[in-house]
Amino acid sequence: MPELPERILMGPGPSDVPASVLLAMARPTIGHLDPAFLELMDRVRARLKTVFRTDNEMTLAVSGTGSAGMETAFVNLVEPGDKVLVERNGVFGGRMTDVAARCGAEVVTVDAPWGRIIDPDQLIAAIRQHTPAVVAVVHAETSTGVHQPLDGIADAVHDAGGLLLVDCVTSLGGMPVEVDAWGIDAAYSGTQKCLSCPPGLSPVTLSPRAVARLEARTRKVQSWYLDLSMVRSYWGAERAYHHTAPINMLYALDEALDLVVREGLEPRFERHRQAHQRLAAGLAELGIDFVSQEGHRLPMLNAVSVPAGVDDAATRRRLLAEYGIEIGGGLGDLAGKAWRIGLMGHAARPRNVDLLLAALRRILAGGV
Amino acid sequence: MPELPERILMGPGPSDVPASVLLAMARPTIGHLDPAFLELMDRVRARLKTVFRTDNEMTLAVSGTGSAGMETAFVNLVEPGDKVLVERNGVFGGRMTDVAARCGAEVVTVDAPWGRIIDPDQLIAAIRQHTPAVVAVVHAETSTGVHQPLDGIADAVHDAGGLLLVDCVTSLGGMPVEVDAWGIDAAYSGTQKCLSCPPGLSPVTLSPRAVARLEARTRKVQSWYLDLSMVRSYWGAERAYHHTAPINMLYALDEALDLVVREGLEPRFERHRQAHQRLAAGLAELGIDFVSQEGHRLPMLNAVSVPAGVDDAATRRRLLAEYGIEIGGGLGDLAGKAWRIGLMGHAARPRNVDLLLAALRRILAGGV
Repeated sequence: MPELPERILMGPGPSDVPASVLLAMARPTIGHLDPAFLELMDRVRARLKTVFRTDNEMTLAVSGTGSAGMETAFVNLVEPGDKVLVERNGVFGGRMTDVAARCGAEVVTVDAPWGRIIDPDQLIAAIRQHTPAVVAVVHAETSTGVHQPLDGIADAVHDAGGLLLVDCVTSLGGMPVEVDAWGIDAAYSGTQKCLSCPPGLSPVTLSPRAVARLEARTRKVQSWYLDLSMVRSYWGAERAYHHTAPINMLYALDEALDLVVREGLEPRFERHRQAHQRLAAGLAELGIDFVSQEGHRLPMLNAVSVPAGVDDAATRRRLLAEYGIEIGGGLGDLAGKAWRIGLMGHAARPRNVDLLLAALRRILAGGV
Repeated sequence: MPELPERILMGPGPSDVPASVLLAMARPTIGHLDPAFLELMDRVRARLKTVFRTDNEMTLAVSGTGSAGMETAFVNLVEPGDKVLVERNGVFGGRMTDVAARCGAEVVTVDAPWGRIIDPDQLIAAIRQHTPAVVAVVHAETSTGVHQPLDGIADAVHDAGGLLLVDCVTSLGGMPVEVDAWGIDAAYSGTQKCLSCPPGLSPVTLSPRAVARLEARTRKVQSWYLDLSMVRSYWGAERAYHHTAPINMLYALDEALDLVVREGLEPRFERHRQAHQRLAAGLAELGIDFVSQEGHRLPMLNAVSVPAGVDDAATRRRLLAEYGIEIGGGLGDLAGKAWRIGLMGHAARPRNVDLLLAALRRILAGGV
């Protein structure tokens, strides 16, 4: 097989994967109904509950990457004609409006400039005004590095008779995600960010309220593949065959979650915070500013302005070629204007921060 | 990590995965826009064209298992109100009717008893009668072991102004699948059958005629995740970010396809035929009959009757516990009545056939 380059993944994901996760994944494939595999699935489910901080019985890994998790949440909980309110201040809020519209939803948005949070009071006012069936919020906006506060949102959503759907793709495993305590009805994530597992699965959890909505649907879920009313029968006691699960990916997730649980969620969050502070201090010395609002910056996704006069693509090319470091470019409104520096999971370490800062210092000084 | 049992996978898939494929998959994850990864994607695409025997530019691996491939074909090519004719003589034909209906199609079926082929003349007559927008056929029905002949079908479909959609999940890589020569407009497969790669990706190919249909759609594809009008931009020269690809799964597929191409398609098909003949001869000695119609049996999926008086589940449990051999039980109409013995890809070897026959002989004789 052709050789692959050695990288340090400090972009918006995937993140660096620990060796034990890679090795776990490389174990021989066994059957998707093998008793040993079903046991592994049960363990994955239990650990996902721990990481999501939920007792939700419907907690599982969808057989696709994070965007499949987003689609799963919408196709299962939205029926044509439902009103869906989406908070939009970046690429992933925008993607939510697209996915919701494809489900036949009547979509309403609450917008803010990229890099700014949505004002919770404004969001709550919009919820009261529109009484949407679903309110969709991006907890950690990967395109802008903004951490959206969720205080008070669930109460407003539930008072209006709706469900709260939260995108935790980038936050899960790197900062607190309290599904039960925060009253979240549907959350989804990806494996390739702060869980430090290769991409290919999307952890999803639904509250009993969301499950009741699913069970009360008047028409079938438009996606057969992502229909949780069937997928749940495979993850549940029935073990009814639905589709062949990505066996080896689940080996990897099992091991990745074991590492998360063994480290402990709070120490893991603290490690992400410290790496972020170290990076922020170093970037300040280099005169590099954040594009995300102060006080609402994600530890694991640092979106910063490309300094004036610096060639975005050339700098990233040099980081990759000379140091093997991958950082991300800007998306959408921020294309060519921002860098997205990831400190996710296994990659959130002082040595990565220091190396990146050293490399940037040298490259920006015009050195070779 | 907990130990996993050693298995020989002779069920309906997944199949045994060669060590080099597992090792290829375990290489460190790199970014989905890394130049080295884009090169690997190009190689996967070229090799998929070879295996599908097609020049179709739109040939790629969808980020989900085989059923995601089925859904991809339908959601991209069907619009609400379109007439879809489905050939149905097993579980997967049945699944197609469900998926098509969720796309808003008006579904018509041509049925045959499980284990029998659909008579091509009957199918052609139905195509002429209904002039459907899409005709969907399962080439290799995994639930019954039936090999559906496709002769003359494409001409009838095209004369009627339709597209021919073929499920090749179980056939691809184990018997001829001639996408271009047979006039197939959309074909999909899975990685975990005769390609002997872990489950998690679905190879898909669309003819220029199918691409034209996609481009002429009047409304968006209902699935954002599987929307080929966007996915193509990532696999194409634009390299536009859509969703994060399952990187390590693509490492595995790259290596698995390399093994297929190095063995050669014809020798590989011959190996499957020979393994099937060896198994069929041994089963005949044991008095075990096929449920699939003579002359139309798949080499890689041997569906046979559970002999009278034999306990289906207990026998399969003993095969698994005492020999580590997995074979499949019956699905749907054949639950409890059939065994499905897979000879797929790497597993299609004389030593597996001989061991299974020896094990069955001993267990059926009541031995220990």
